[in-house]
Amino acid sequence: MKDPIDFYFDFSSPYGYLMSEKIDALAERHGRKVRWRPFLLGAVYKQLGSQPLPSIPMKGPYSIRDFQRTARFLELPLQIPEAFPIPTQHAARAYYWIHERDCPLARTFAHAVFRRYFVDGQDISQQELVLDIAKSVGADRTALADAIGGDELKARLREVCEEAIALGVFGSPYVIVDGEPFWGVDRLPQIERWLETGGF
Amino acid sequence: MKDPIDFYFDFSSPYGYLMSEKIDALAERHGRKVRWRPFLLGAVYKQLGSQPLPSIPMKGPYSIRDFQRTARFLELPLQIPEAFPIPTQHAARAYYWIHERDCPLARTFAHAVFRRYFVDGQDISQQELVLDIAKSVGADRTALADAIGGDELKARLREVCEEAIALGVFGSPYVIVDGEPFWGVDRLPQIERWLETGGF
Repeated sequence: MKDPIDFYFDFSSPYGYLMSEKIDALAERHGRKVRWRPFLLGAVYKQLGSQPLPSIPMKGPYSIRDFQRTARFLELPLQIPEAFPIPTQHAARAYYWIHERDCPLARTFAHAVFRRYFVDGQDISQQELVLDIAKSVGADRTALADAIGGDELKARLREVCEEAIALGVFGSPYVIVDGEPFWGVDRLPQIERWLETGGF
Repeated sequence: MKDPIDFYFDFSSPYGYLMSEKIDALAERHGRKVRWRPFLLGAVYKQLGSQPLPSIPMKGPYSIRDFQRTARFLELPLQIPEAFPIPTQHAARAYYWIHERDCPLARTFAHAVFRRYFVDGQDISQQELVLDIAKSVGADRTALADAIGGDELKARLREVCEEAIALGVFGSPYVIVDGEPFWGVDRLPQIERWLETGGF
């Protein structure tokens, strides 16, 4: 049994969303599972002293255009929401809470969060919306509502962010295959060749 | 007759080198010419307050690995030189001087500069080496030596840098097809589809 692929992403990352729609099928074609690892890009940016892409001069306007063009290239729906980028700690904490109880449900929840944000334009930074999405996929809304602001989940997400930084994860999406890191959805063809050949 | 494609690059950019080995053949398959526009990334970084990729924490070590892997993916030779990155004003000025006299020779010169740096590991920041490379491809070394430090060529390169910044060119390579900008050698598949379809 081959090791799983690690997929780090922030729920507010358009390229992360695009990767989320592709990575499982790609991995499956090569007999691999994917470990989804939502984290907070803000924690990394704080560490690096860097800024969200859209706020960088020149690169910002380009990136908005590139998000949309890359989505068309990959034949995926994408709208850049009015509130963008946003903090995603509620969504990430909810992901880990659901994952401890039901792994496949956590995957369904993550897809739902990404699509609510990047297809429907809803503001997934809102805790109530995150709870509603969790309920809509079949999670226990009441139990999650009790847990989501608690120390345990906060610590869990903080650990993932620290782990990401320790691994050198500086952006989203960031995919690690047998120790080899790939940053960006534009690395899909390289990931595919890596899986096919065992490294090139 | 279709408009040419603009290809902005810095001679010190590994992804720029990789693009330089691919863009002409790709354009030709779609009946296009390419205007090569060497410029100085340093001028843009100064404007943006940004730093060369290799000096950025986490992103730097990743980028070194990615340069080499992307070269293997594209089946091109690449070694990251000991002196990297370096200032490339002599090479860029020589390019424009040769281009005014002999367009195809300027292309041959540009390929030679890139390969001396990224294949042979020679330090192309040195004016004497730039002059030697110019001579090796058949340019007039003596006349170029007289011109290369002159105000006219300095002004020419400054204009190109200002033009690049005005167009929003913030990185290398940066390719513009009929007004549509593509940053990075990883956008080759998107450029190809754009040329095939006239936009998507």
